Amino acid sequence: MNTPPTTRTRVRRVATNAAYDSATLHAIIDDAYICHIAFTDDHGTHCIPTACWREGPHLYIHGSNGSRMLKRLMEQDVCVTITHVDGLVMARSAFSHSMNYRSAMIYGRFAPVPESDKAATMAAFMESLVPGRQADVRPGSANELAATTVLRITLDEAACKVRSGGANEEEGDESLPHWAGELPLRRVRQQPLRNADCNAALPGYISRWLEQS
Amino acid sequence: MNTPPTTRTRVRRVATNAAYDSATLHAIIDDAYICHIAFTDDHGTHCIPTACWREGPHLYIHGSNGSRMLKRLMEQDVCVTITHVDGLVMARSAFSHSMNYRSAMIYGRFAPVPESDKAATMAAFMESLVPGRQADVRPGSANELAATTVLRITLDEAACKVRSGGANEEEGDESLPHWAGELPLRRVRQQPLRNADCNAALPGYISRWLEQS
Repeated sequence: MNTPPTTRTRVRRVATNAAYDSATLHAIIDDAYICHIAFTDDHGTHCIPTACWREGPHLYIHGSNGSRMLKRLMEQDVCVTITHVDGLVMARSAFSHSMNYRSAMIYGRFAPVPESDKAATMAAFMESLVPGRQADVRPGSANELAATTVLRITLDEAACKVRSGGANEEEGDESLPHWAGELPLRRVRQQPLRNADCNAALPGYISRWLEQS
Repeated sequence: MNTPPTTRTRVRRVATNAAYDSATLHAIIDDAYICHIAFTDDHGTHCIPTACWREGPHLYIHGSNGSRMLKRLMEQDVCVTITHVDGLVMARSAFSHSMNYRSAMIYGRFAPVPESDKAATMAAFMESLVPGRQADVRPGSANELAATTVLRITLDEAACKVRSGGANEEEGDESLPHWAGELPLRRVRQQPLRNADCNAALPGYISRWLEQS
């Protein structure tokens, strides 16, 4: 990831927004609940959303052993993309409008996580979602673990693209009287909704998760 | 879209969450600022995020005439996917955890929007972002319009998948003492940030956009 971009990862459009460093990449992945994965099969090209998490230099996904997608992902190079939309950018001219975003694209092939590592990896997934939760659930049984496939892809071939800030105008447009600026968007954690069949008090780790919104 | 699912769009995993009606599809698209598009070229399979909007039975995207992606999208069948993550679902057992989401997948081929329709279509894009904005900008010049490619894809071959609500437990897990429920996530519009070089007052249509957050 600290190597030069490849043919597939070199950003061409608005290349000044490109970033190829691990810190930017890791932060974009760690802020994501899902990624989109592009792959092909006999029926064509597909773009499928799935939950993801990161441990060190790998992005992880999981699914049922029976999943057709997971099988295909181990047989071909794929592209994994994560995008956060951070705001709308209002410029004085229509064609200078833009969006603020953070996106990451990862190229490579998924490999299976060994049986012996699956339990720890799934626990890490849970901790990445809500720290503290893993200690307050019924852990996966041997059968549940055995029915689950966990895959990972290295982050070696990846590129990020990030835009932030206000409007950039074409020369001469700055003096136009229209409002210009950013309309920020943010993902906000809302009040938990307890299951109707549950009487347990809200655990402290969920309250803390909520406060860190 | 009210026809039966095709080989590509029939949902297999948790098929009870599938929906094939236009109202669900349109609502998912209309709530999105971006989509992810899967396509292939000589370098492999790619998953690229791009801004999108809807008019009637079509999803639209746009870009520079020089965009390699836009050229490729007119030459092959592609898959366009939109996903909204609406919450994390905490179940008593680790493997019954889930996410609430609304996703749409559209298969087909993009076609160019004729030159004569481009100005009106780009204006519709602006109105879909912030209603009222189009009347308060410098409109696109003939040159700007000529340098822009607008593509659209029909929504005829599409499928949605939606999950909402609380945790569904395996039999026997309901009585476990762990907290169960939904941790909702919501995209929230934040206070506008005016460009440093702008003195214009915040327009009423942006205040209204903010209130409808």
